Amino acid sequence: MTEPFRIGIAGLGTVGGGVVELLQKNRVEIEARAGRKIQIAAISARSRSKTRGTNIKKYRWLSDPLAVAEDPKIDAVVELIGGAGGAAKKLAEATLKAGKPLITANKALLAHHGHDLALLAERHDTQLMYEAAVAGGIPIIKTLREGLAGNNINAVYGILNGTCNYILTTMRETGRDFKAVLKEAQKMGYAEADSSFDIDGIDTGHKLTVLSMLAFGIKSDFKALSMKGIRNVTAQDIGFAMELGYRIKLLGMARRVGNKIFQSVEPCLVPAGSNIGSVEGVYNAVYTEGDFAGTGLSIGRGAGAHPTASAVVADIIDLARGHRVLPFGIPARRMKKVSTAGTNEIHSRFYMRLEVVDKPGVLAGVSAVMKEHGLSIEAVMQRGRDPGKPVSIVLTTHAVKQSAMEKAAAHMKGLKAVIEKPCLLRIESF
Amino acid sequence: MTEPFRIGIAGLGTVGGGVVELLQKNRVEIEARAGRKIQIAAISARSRSKTRGTNIKKYRWLSDPLAVAEDPKIDAVVELIGGAGGAAKKLAEATLKAGKPLITANKALLAHHGHDLALLAERHDTQLMYEAAVAGGIPIIKTLREGLAGNNINAVYGILNGTCNYILTTMRETGRDFKAVLKEAQKMGYAEADSSFDIDGIDTGHKLTVLSMLAFGIKSDFKALSMKGIRNVTAQDIGFAMELGYRIKLLGMARRVGNKIFQSVEPCLVPAGSNIGSVEGVYNAVYTEGDFAGTGLSIGRGAGAHPTASAVVADIIDLARGHRVLPFGIPARRMKKVSTAGTNEIHSRFYMRLEVVDKPGVLAGVSAVMKEHGLSIEAVMQRGRDPGKPVSIVLTTHAVKQSAMEKAAAHMKGLKAVIEKPCLLRIESF
Repeated sequence: MTEPFRIGIAGLGTVGGGVVELLQKNRVEIEARAGRKIQIAAISARSRSKTRGTNIKKYRWLSDPLAVAEDPKIDAVVELIGGAGGAAKKLAEATLKAGKPLITANKALLAHHGHDLALLAERHDTQLMYEAAVAGGIPIIKTLREGLAGNNINAVYGILNGTCNYILTTMRETGRDFKAVLKEAQKMGYAEADSSFDIDGIDTGHKLTVLSMLAFGIKSDFKALSMKGIRNVTAQDIGFAMELGYRIKLLGMARRVGNKIFQSVEPCLVPAGSNIGSVEGVYNAVYTEGDFAGTGLSIGRGAGAHPTASAVVADIIDLARGHRVLPFGIPARRMKKVSTAGTNEIHSRFYMRLEVVDKPGVLAGVSAVMKEHGLSIEAVMQRGRDPGKPVSIVLTTHAVKQSAMEKAAAHMKGLKAVIEKPCLLRIESF
Repeated sequence: MTEPFRIGIAGLGTVGGGVVELLQKNRVEIEARAGRKIQIAAISARSRSKTRGTNIKKYRWLSDPLAVAEDPKIDAVVELIGGAGGAAKKLAEATLKAGKPLITANKALLAHHGHDLALLAERHDTQLMYEAAVAGGIPIIKTLREGLAGNNINAVYGILNGTCNYILTTMRETGRDFKAVLKEAQKMGYAEADSSFDIDGIDTGHKLTVLSMLAFGIKSDFKALSMKGIRNVTAQDIGFAMELGYRIKLLGMARRVGNKIFQSVEPCLVPAGSNIGSVEGVYNAVYTEGDFAGTGLSIGRGAGAHPTASAVVADIIDLARGHRVLPFGIPARRMKKVSTAGTNEIHSRFYMRLEVVDKPGVLAGVSAVMKEHGLSIEAVMQRGRDPGKPVSIVLTTHAVKQSAMEKAAAHMKGLKAVIEKPCLLRIESF
């Protein structure tokens, strides 16, 4: 057996603790697969004295995370500090500049600086590994980068945030509204106290950006990404979706449209009985479309100490075995900037809910607007709640141009009988 | 760019044609990912003159497949001949003995000789790659061997045969019986003329054996595997399963039970609304349970020229990039022989259908037998078909010992009122 593979771990939160625990617990199996010992050569975190689930006293402590990158007794650095910039970015750069492999779970860092870091890794002939950055328990990075390497990928979609999927699932199961379910999820530890990153779609956006770079070999522009979270999804829409045979899921979507890429994070209706529709609770799922492999869907746990540690340790084992692969599968200098497809280039089916005054002729008015914008209605449903109260008109469309649909929705908003901003959601079947 | 990676392809059926097509069509992307050119240095197949979808005239032709292994101008051999022995086995051995990597889609060969071939590959310091052998479009070999390498795998289950899943799905959708649907599937090319390998569960058994070796690091014994196909699944059972909220799927199952392994191929009831229940038509799915990653399910196309070619080419790209990994993740000499768990060690839920004479006291008799064997009934359903005709009694159990359940079923068969061998199917929820 060769020399041990010596790693330094920077950041010892939930995931860091999980990594230490996994390396301890499955040591024998991990060594058999790596072909050598994995040695935790140093740890760096904010507090050494904090009580943790795992015993870390026996490991060498470095108070400065940058010292982990520079230490000649460390072969690879595991960055679990988090955040798009700051200490994490500095550590990542120092590690790669030192010619050492970097293993990171940091999707924000990759979404903002992934291409630059890949260039840096390749310039210094070292590796940038990030299986844990997207959908922890699902080895989707390896799947896209290696398993589907023969394919041109046409689309990658995903349920990428377990907190959002848990909230949407619970809303559907209980009929309760967003705020009540979020509060409960926070109490139970399924949602963070400051949950904006999750529920406003930013976390999904980070992960989608990483998947997009990998799937299409492009320099994805996170700042240009359209992101809509689940804050405005109502119990009412979830109910109507159910009646129509759908479930509402927060999707990250990236698809080739000619020479452009359509990218979006938004809540969508998906068929209840489909593979993606049956992904519930905290589970994540990633859908891929390869020109030869065809369509695939991988379902698994996206977050949590153990699934994320599983991904980090897979990268560690790969590196220990001598696995050498370019961060995004192709040379980073060959990754292209690609234009985003505009809403006038996208055809989708839509769900629209209108709250209207219950009087004769309203439906005729709505239908007239749809016709004016050249939009083809698939189904209409009208439901009154209480006598004298406004009624809901719900309609679904065939595949229509998104920009036309959005114009129609704006037009509807101006109708006298329409008393609320229309709710417009995309319908995705895959 | 380094020297081209020169492959020899032996066998040019559906999959071989797909590999050539894929290497031609996605040449530019494949070279970017492999870091070098992939060159088809020679082809060997039964007939050179046969009309094929792809142009193969420009490739060097070797009439003897063994010449592919011996040719000094070939870096790696792609074995697509098929079959557990014969030419495929000879070629595999000659290739590995020559110290050349072998890429194969041959599950029968691996199920029977996988361990010996792995020993041979390791002795000659070369690679044995077989992503295409199981669930073509799903990179499940890489997922188990590398993506989940940090985990102890507790279970791997799968819908591993598209033909069976297509037949069962069509039976459910149309209410027609097995023979009629099989006939139609054969006409449409979804089932082979000689479909016994598929419908009797042997193909699933081959694939399960490969997954088992990889997941548990064991020398799996194909000959000891219990295999039951879908030939005896009736339209009636599919109907009852639907009424109870289940679908019938042919599953390959392997699970750790203490120090033993439970392994079986058989049609099972799975919840209709579950992830696995929503895998329909020709799709395959593989379920994994890792001690850290948790549960995962990967769905995709299992067969066909394109998905299988995608898997073969992923292996080729890996090898061209210099990927070096042990065939079954751990050294082959460390793979252990493991005992199979007996039916008295397995607890499962069961579905049982009895055809009985419609007279008072039958249900009481059935219940008494269940009680006698200590079996706990979950639900009972009795359905008459026509007046004077026999009626069906369907019952489901809580988790019970399999051996006791089988004894009860044999006991029931002896009851005077029971006019057919009881139909006993396992219920699996995952």
